[in-house]
Amino acid sequence: MIRVALDAMGGDHAPATEVDGAVLALRELPANFALLLVGLPERIEAELARHPDVDRSRLTVVPASEVIGMSEKPIAAIRKKQDSSLVVGLALQKKGLADASVSAGNTGAILAGSTILLGLHEGVDRATVASSFPAPDGPVLVLDSGANVDCTAKELINFAHIGSVYARDVMGRPNPTVGLLNVGEEDEKGTAVVREAHAALRQHTRINYIGNIEGRDVVVGHPTHGRIDVVVCDGFVGNILLKFYESMAKLLGRVLHKESPGLLKSPELGPLMRFLDYSETGGAPLLGVRGVSIICHGSSTPLAIKNAIRYAVASVHARLSDHIAAELSMPVTASTE
Amino acid sequence: MIRVALDAMGGDHAPATEVDGAVLALRELPANFALLLVGLPERIEAELARHPDVDRSRLTVVPASEVIGMSEKPIAAIRKKQDSSLVVGLALQKKGLADASVSAGNTGAILAGSTILLGLHEGVDRATVASSFPAPDGPVLVLDSGANVDCTAKELINFAHIGSVYARDVMGRPNPTVGLLNVGEEDEKGTAVVREAHAALRQHTRINYIGNIEGRDVVVGHPTHGRIDVVVCDGFVGNILLKFYESMAKLLGRVLHKESPGLLKSPELGPLMRFLDYSETGGAPLLGVRGVSIICHGSSTPLAIKNAIRYAVASVHARLSDHIAAELSMPVTASTE
Repeated sequence: MIRVALDAMGGDHAPATEVDGAVLALRELPANFALLLVGLPERIEAELARHPDVDRSRLTVVPASEVIGMSEKPIAAIRKKQDSSLVVGLALQKKGLADASVSAGNTGAILAGSTILLGLHEGVDRATVASSFPAPDGPVLVLDSGANVDCTAKELINFAHIGSVYARDVMGRPNPTVGLLNVGEEDEKGTAVVREAHAALRQHTRINYIGNIEGRDVVVGHPTHGRIDVVVCDGFVGNILLKFYESMAKLLGRVLHKESPGLLKSPELGPLMRFLDYSETGGAPLLGVRGVSIICHGSSTPLAIKNAIRYAVASVHARLSDHIAAELSMPVTASTE
Repeated sequence: MIRVALDAMGGDHAPATEVDGAVLALRELPANFALLLVGLPERIEAELARHPDVDRSRLTVVPASEVIGMSEKPIAAIRKKQDSSLVVGLALQKKGLADASVSAGNTGAILAGSTILLGLHEGVDRATVASSFPAPDGPVLVLDSGANVDCTAKELINFAHIGSVYARDVMGRPNPTVGLLNVGEEDEKGTAVVREAHAALRQHTRINYIGNIEGRDVVVGHPTHGRIDVVVCDGFVGNILLKFYESMAKLLGRVLHKESPGLLKSPELGPLMRFLDYSETGGAPLLGVRGVSIICHGSSTPLAIKNAIRYAVASVHARLSDHIAAELSMPVTASTE
């Protein structure tokens, strides 16, 4: 049984959304997991009362008396609020009482808390947030998407390895393609850091590295290599691109409202708007930590929470963390003998 | 009469597209300009023969015997091919025989050639390419969009000034808002360079600086400030974002093809696809040079060439280059007396 610690107090509408997401997960996902709902017991129980038929045998409420706010300074909050739902949830994993942690709380605090409590794999200096970009041929993993605004070449190279493992283990891509986000395909393009990473990645034979890619390739695919499974970039570019993409549904709505208001009501538009709708995306994994930590949008819906739980379970089941540790400890070049 | 030198040999389908664009411009735009079509006279005349009714009194063919290819090294090409259509066109402006230059050729060569031949304004270290992003409330100017992958804080600050002048002079925005593209709104967000630029821009009273903005604000506008007229970023982020946005029409086409193929044939979808269609965008101004230089996509359509000519004429008419020089020579803080 895989045990997932869910920070019940994290999101903008906690604990209602978290409880609803937990109930949804217990009802709809395969029964190979149990949930630990961490937070203020009375608040959680009040929400659970709306779901009298939930399977309580797979749901435990774990008390935590404090809540970390969205605008608190991450490291200070982690240190000060030892009995917060976030810290308690991560501590469960650290103690071996949970296998994964999910939170829709303060992103910086989840990042700091996961790093401090779970620790980092050998060779990793900072954890990375990987985001799934909706794409016509299945999601594209973009990392880093906001945790590390400045990256060294070594970090970008690590993202390529870590992202490849995640794509194999959780996204079902046996031989994932990796592209380095750049302003052109040629070797001499980009900043000094990106050029260094590109030159090094070409030597990494265990990665299916297709080379520099451009902004236009991210979601529609590369002209010759097709779908790109893993897009590597620093967190400054990745975060700006993620949020830009998130605004596309709103943009289409605005343009259509102005130009073709009738179309907005068409049921045929539904699939496109759902495709662009980030509210169903099941959070972003924090990779490089020893364990499994999933970061959800503060505005997550119950469906997004359910999906995050699904990814958490899949990550534990696939032994993602062990595989990342192994990947980072292997030599760059595969033996040719 | 404003004289525009058009590199007739620049684009992917030169000189046919350039000639068609020139004819379109002469036919449809106000008659306050004349065109100098620079390139191989026989090739140009052969295309002009398709338009027997064109007003030749406002169109002069200027011979240039060489062509710079799309994959040539920019600076080497500029130095070696002194009789190329690009260099001859820019030299006309340098000699005072033209007021503006337009080319759909090798972007790096246009950048290098414009910098070398026209020179830079006092206080500008490198010219910047500004791109117009389609947005529901009118285009948003994003600079730099690819000329400068690494930028200092001083350069970002210059972009804010230069972009503001362009927005006033050419885009009809009397008091343009300026946002600095970042991963969050707070002062402490972003790289060291971006933080430095943000702190400085807050002191620049002649700029309507609204502060750090996020990726989601670029085209749908800022939650409190509304439309952002000028978005400042380095050329690495700007170029990736531009190309990502350019791929959105293709993305929508793919998703609809898969999910709602019937909708693809609906005329109601037309305005949205045209909104996202970059082929009509009239090139990107190269700003910071002494003069007017417009860079068009290699794959520009005649309509795009026409629009580029329109922007070139508008830039000369508004005395854009003089205003940029003046802006950069003024003190940062307006007198409070």
